[in-house]
Amino acid sequence: MGASIRIGIAGYGNLGRGVQAAIAKNPDMELVGVYTRRDPAALSLPGGATAFHMDELAKHTEDIDVLVLCGGSKSDLPEQGPALAAMFNTVDSFDTHAKIPEHFAAVDAPATAAGKTALISAGWDPGMFSINRVYGEALLPDGETYTFWGRGLSQGHSDAIRRVPGVAGGVQYTIPSTEAIAKVRAGERPTLSTREKHVRECFVVLEDDADAASVREAIVTMEHYFDQYDTTVNFIDAATLASEHSSMPHGGFVFRSGNTTDEHSQVIEYSLTLQSNPEFTSSVLVAYARAVHKMNQAGQIGAKTVFDVAPGLLSPKSPEQLRAELL
Amino acid sequence: MGASIRIGIAGYGNLGRGVQAAIAKNPDMELVGVYTRRDPAALSLPGGATAFHMDELAKHTEDIDVLVLCGGSKSDLPEQGPALAAMFNTVDSFDTHAKIPEHFAAVDAPATAAGKTALISAGWDPGMFSINRVYGEALLPDGETYTFWGRGLSQGHSDAIRRVPGVAGGVQYTIPSTEAIAKVRAGERPTLSTREKHVRECFVVLEDDADAASVREAIVTMEHYFDQYDTTVNFIDAATLASEHSSMPHGGFVFRSGNTTDEHSQVIEYSLTLQSNPEFTSSVLVAYARAVHKMNQAGQIGAKTVFDVAPGLLSPKSPEQLRAELL
Repeated sequence: MGASIRIGIAGYGNLGRGVQAAIAKNPDMELVGVYTRRDPAALSLPGGATAFHMDELAKHTEDIDVLVLCGGSKSDLPEQGPALAAMFNTVDSFDTHAKIPEHFAAVDAPATAAGKTALISAGWDPGMFSINRVYGEALLPDGETYTFWGRGLSQGHSDAIRRVPGVAGGVQYTIPSTEAIAKVRAGERPTLSTREKHVRECFVVLEDDADAASVREAIVTMEHYFDQYDTTVNFIDAATLASEHSSMPHGGFVFRSGNTTDEHSQVIEYSLTLQSNPEFTSSVLVAYARAVHKMNQAGQIGAKTVFDVAPGLLSPKSPEQLRAELL
Repeated sequence: MGASIRIGIAGYGNLGRGVQAAIAKNPDMELVGVYTRRDPAALSLPGGATAFHMDELAKHTEDIDVLVLCGGSKSDLPEQGPALAAMFNTVDSFDTHAKIPEHFAAVDAPATAAGKTALISAGWDPGMFSINRVYGEALLPDGETYTFWGRGLSQGHSDAIRRVPGVAGGVQYTIPSTEAIAKVRAGERPTLSTREKHVRECFVVLEDDADAASVREAIVTMEHYFDQYDTTVNFIDAATLASEHSSMPHGGFVFRSGNTTDEHSQVIEYSLTLQSNPEFTSSVLVAYARAVHKMNQAGQIGAKTVFDVAPGLLSPKSPEQLRAELL
């Protein structure tokens, strides 16, 4: 194995911390620095890592093999993705599904001009789930794909319930229907409504003078977020919220159910059970950083997605080793 | 979409028939011919396909984009793989795990010399299971991989019981331990012995004068095949064997269980439930034939494995379509 792959982290929230932890699990990688828009001196970094201000990135183009972008999809990545792909090989977790083609184009131009490789939308959905949707459709063209999410904490839905008047705090879990999954797993290929696929469970802390019944009603009827689902609202106290609902589990299932002939059906299932959603996403980003490094060295430049990356490129092992040990 | 991908089938057993069925499910492909070592006139082919003798392949190099090799791993593929990779882009399902590096080298030289692309060892194990072992290890480097097979008909073990004196017919199913799978799925990362991972179940038809107790004893103590497993032997009549045990179900599970930090563990599960093992294997071969065709057009020649193939190449959809629809 050659020299370590030198990784930079741009943005130090949950995802950035997860990337730091993932680098520590991969002996062929080293963390060059954490880049932040905050005051670098105020960041407390474990393991002797160094913090820099984001503005210093332009001076560090020679020190970083791959920069992992750990900002949010709403405002950070649309701006940082194109700007940083002009200077670095990058990996991001852009997850606004509808805007992926736009983000791809925005990153592709500067990356190609600079001879850099920029992989967008890595993680688990988009990411590993997307890969399994493609494999499933290609292997069983006469069939149906089903994606279920959860049991997991949904950040967007948790934010929504915290905006309801009378709510002091709360979280929302998305739960896939056990019954729906059983039907899909059995190869029944059911037609499932939104309500039949997932249920939503909320744990809510009320403000002192709030009326529980009105809060419940405001939540379960909330348009788009809850009205199309069966929603349970549980009222708890602040101590319980802090002690039992502060972790970020998630996961889900991708199924492909199809027929190879009229006589025979086949079911493919891929599932994730994650104790920490951001840490797993970060681990995916780091494995793809390795692939991006290899692809750039091989002259494969421009914007890429997980669909463009051969599985072997994610591994620190050589192709010979992979064939001998894992095929 | 351009012209159809022209596929040839070399060998017409269960796998060859499955490839023919899979081509019919993929509108971007057409079957050019079935090549056999038997008398082509004696083959009854559905759907108006044409049979040729294997010796005629050399005359058809201009007519076939990808030749799918459907022979066995023991004697057919070691000979046919190198010989045919000198004339065609090929896909095979070579599944003798220990000899994969040797087969790769044997196919790589003639394919490279001829500018052809030869993908070896496609299917589900080796194949889709191998891909999931690589993804799992790369995403969760601090963890363990578990592969379970079944419930499925094992050809090798069925052959072994049919060789026992007193046995007129029979089949063997490999069954993964429900208890072991539950532990792995729960993230316990157990150490499992061979006996703890799978059990074996046999359905046996006795010859008229055979002694059931001796046959059972001969089976359950058979070295390598059964002695390391808990084996159940059920005696049935020939009519039941024919009516209830003539299909070829199989499947299994690949798990990766690992920690991203000391605090959080993550579990990835991939599983297949196959009503027809050969038909699913054939579907994988056909999807990889599409990828091989694209790779050869892009100048990627020589021997390849599933580890070298980006997921998007398996799909008939364009990269733009995949990003917009499936990412």
